[in-house]
Amino acid sequence: MLCLTHATDPRWAQIAVANLGAVLADHAHCEMKAAANAISLATRWPAPTGVARALTAVAEEELAHFREVLALLERRGIELGRPETDAYAADLRRAALASGDKSPRGSLADRLLVGALIEARSCERFRLLADALAARDDSLAPFYDDLFACEARHYTTMVDLAVAVWGDERRVRERLAVLAAAEGEIAARLGARPAIHG
Amino acid sequence: MLCLTHATDPRWAQIAVANLGAVLADHAHCEMKAAANAISLATRWPAPTGVARALTAVAEEELAHFREVLALLERRGIELGRPETDAYAADLRRAALASGDKSPRGSLADRLLVGALIEARSCERFRLLADALAARDDSLAPFYDDLFACEARHYTTMVDLAVAVWGDERRVRERLAVLAAAEGEIAARLGARPAIHG
Repeated sequence: MLCLTHATDPRWAQIAVANLGAVLADHAHCEMKAAANAISLATRWPAPTGVARALTAVAEEELAHFREVLALLERRGIELGRPETDAYAADLRRAALASGDKSPRGSLADRLLVGALIEARSCERFRLLADALAARDDSLAPFYDDLFACEARHYTTMVDLAVAVWGDERRVRERLAVLAAAEGEIAARLGARPAIHG
Repeated sequence: MLCLTHATDPRWAQIAVANLGAVLADHAHCEMKAAANAISLATRWPAPTGVARALTAVAEEELAHFREVLALLERRGIELGRPETDAYAADLRRAALASGDKSPRGSLADRLLVGALIEARSCERFRLLADALAARDDSLAPFYDDLFACEARHYTTMVDLAVAVWGDERRVRERLAVLAAAEGEIAARLGARPAIHG
């Protein structure tokens, strides 16, 4: 799916559905981490104003999703709780830093591609979750269907923005392939926890 | 104005108007720092969901303001550029940390009060800027008039949220007075640079 090189462990969707409260709270935190990341990249030099505007729109969508997940938590009497450390995202950022172009343009493009891959993984997970919920006739299935489509769009946006920043589509595609391979190795260690990137 | 204990140096508005491009770029960055701060506090344990929702609304408004300032930058051909280090905000956070309640609730309330004071100072500065621009018949005056009102509202919201988190209005008012005195001392060293908190 998208550029992912490793499919999520098939056990994950069942673990997530069986622990939906924990997944929803983690999901709320993920939306806010994504919003914070988009904001940080929007104002990172040398992001042109067009890139800043597109990332602001991404942040606005993540905030809208956060509101929706927060409403679900409230209706179910689940607390937001502390954010979990997202070892998946941290490992991916570390892998990118270790091998990336160190120029301001290169490192901004890299951060955008890391963001794109996180969106791609969330997208894959939301699809699995939507299907597992639909199989149980759970009313949340259409919600995750919508988010699946939205995360797929964010993935494309982030890759396009990396091209806009770096100005060399071939180089961005090559770099995306390298980072996707690193992401696949990290994701291969996941799949057993009730968390969006667990 | 609001709870501020030190009025901005009267030279500031003239310095700002004479360097409007630099002020606009700094303003854009300030909006994004404020949005990032609201997002970080919204998901900080033990923020109740009502507090998270109110802070998400604040973040959404800051993003909308960022868009507006970005459009102004584009129309004037000014680059967003690198964010300046906001020594004012950093000093205020340091002062709060040095004297604040260390409990999770106390430190979240403190962060909200620091945010409230930054909003109050921005509010005062936007008023000065709106008046200085109006005196020159500059078309930007109504924009800063609107932002003045909005920042005043954010100040009130952040103080109310601190009360909601700490559950003790008297204690919050006392702590706000301590932090406002610290903010006044920090602000007394400012006023000569073309930046929102410069």
